[in-house]
Amino acid sequence: MNEEKYISKSVIRRMSLYYRYLDTLLEKQIYSVTSETMASQTKLTASQIRQDLSTFGRFGRVGSGYDVKELQDRLADILGMNQGYTAAVIGLGHLGSMLVYSFPFEKYGIRVTELYDIDPKLVGTKIADLPVYSIEELPRQWNECPVDIAVLACPKSAAADIVPLLTDAKVKGIWNFTNANLHEKDGGPTVENIHLFDSLFTLCCQMNCRDL
Amino acid sequence: MNEEKYISKSVIRRMSLYYRYLDTLLEKQIYSVTSETMASQTKLTASQIRQDLSTFGRFGRVGSGYDVKELQDRLADILGMNQGYTAAVIGLGHLGSMLVYSFPFEKYGIRVTELYDIDPKLVGTKIADLPVYSIEELPRQWNECPVDIAVLACPKSAAADIVPLLTDAKVKGIWNFTNANLHEKDGGPTVENIHLFDSLFTLCCQMNCRDL
Repeated sequence: MNEEKYISKSVIRRMSLYYRYLDTLLEKQIYSVTSETMASQTKLTASQIRQDLSTFGRFGRVGSGYDVKELQDRLADILGMNQGYTAAVIGLGHLGSMLVYSFPFEKYGIRVTELYDIDPKLVGTKIADLPVYSIEELPRQWNECPVDIAVLACPKSAAADIVPLLTDAKVKGIWNFTNANLHEKDGGPTVENIHLFDSLFTLCCQMNCRDL
Repeated sequence: MNEEKYISKSVIRRMSLYYRYLDTLLEKQIYSVTSETMASQTKLTASQIRQDLSTFGRFGRVGSGYDVKELQDRLADILGMNQGYTAAVIGLGHLGSMLVYSFPFEKYGIRVTELYDIDPKLVGTKIADLPVYSIEELPRQWNECPVDIAVLACPKSAAADIVPLLTDAKVKGIWNFTNANLHEKDGGPTVENIHLFDSLFTLCCQMNCRDL
């Protein structure tokens, strides 16, 4: 499936949006949808949607639209949900704990296998049935049993020390919640930064501009 | 300051990135920085940075670079940190609670004044010293004392009922953490969606493409 090899981030974001939209249809037990309906709900154009989806195979029939289940299954493939990826959450403060307890990793095919922190009160315990290791144990642990995704929820100040450990341990991806700006390096892990700060101030700056 | 009226989202994101980068300099007690140093740390070009910043006034001197404190103050202005915005967190599950307890709203000039939930065990109590109201009380509450930003951390299924309340109450901005896709409407609040799902699967899809 080499056609998947060069998907731009903006196409990926739309695929993800389509997936979420199809979820809402399935919740309402709607099993067929046209590109026109998808367009009106996602604020994209029907031709944009058809073009995006046609890149990944033939879906839908003229007149009757897309089979919601079939299309969602294919999107799950493209988004990597069926790869059996494993993940570890690093940093068990408010943010890390929130992710462990409430983010539906499992529903989307990602298995969280372990947690890391530096707090001696947490290390050696279990949280949500998952073992908590000291960050110092990570190299040995991942040498025996590698993990695909590091969910980085530690303080920014700790990120500089932890990222080299992750890179040495050949993690495939870092989902970075710290304020630190992580950049991808050749041969290093894929990085996705999620900066709550940037998001909030994109909102405030736009509000501010409207007020002027 | 009408020049601020039409800032694109990509420029805002860069302003926000500059602000965060300057924070790291101040932590290290560095008070002067050149566009070249900023460029090497942010993976942008020095000319891009100079161009972005020149839009908002004259900063820096040839040779000696930018005054970190002065530049950060100006960025705070542009990003809306000095507007005295107030916020309410709606939905006090794991995500909403995490934001209340650990997101540094105050540090960035935003004052959280109140919280909303539907759980009768929470309504009427205080969390982190903030009063928790029932969502039904919101119209009356905001009629007396409007709030600028609604931080939407409720389940997706509740968003459809809550968003009209917010719009009627003339909220200026919605920071949307639900899986629901909220769109801006003419005259309605500014919306910033933060979809953890999209972010995680942008990562997984890229990892998947590299593996192929």
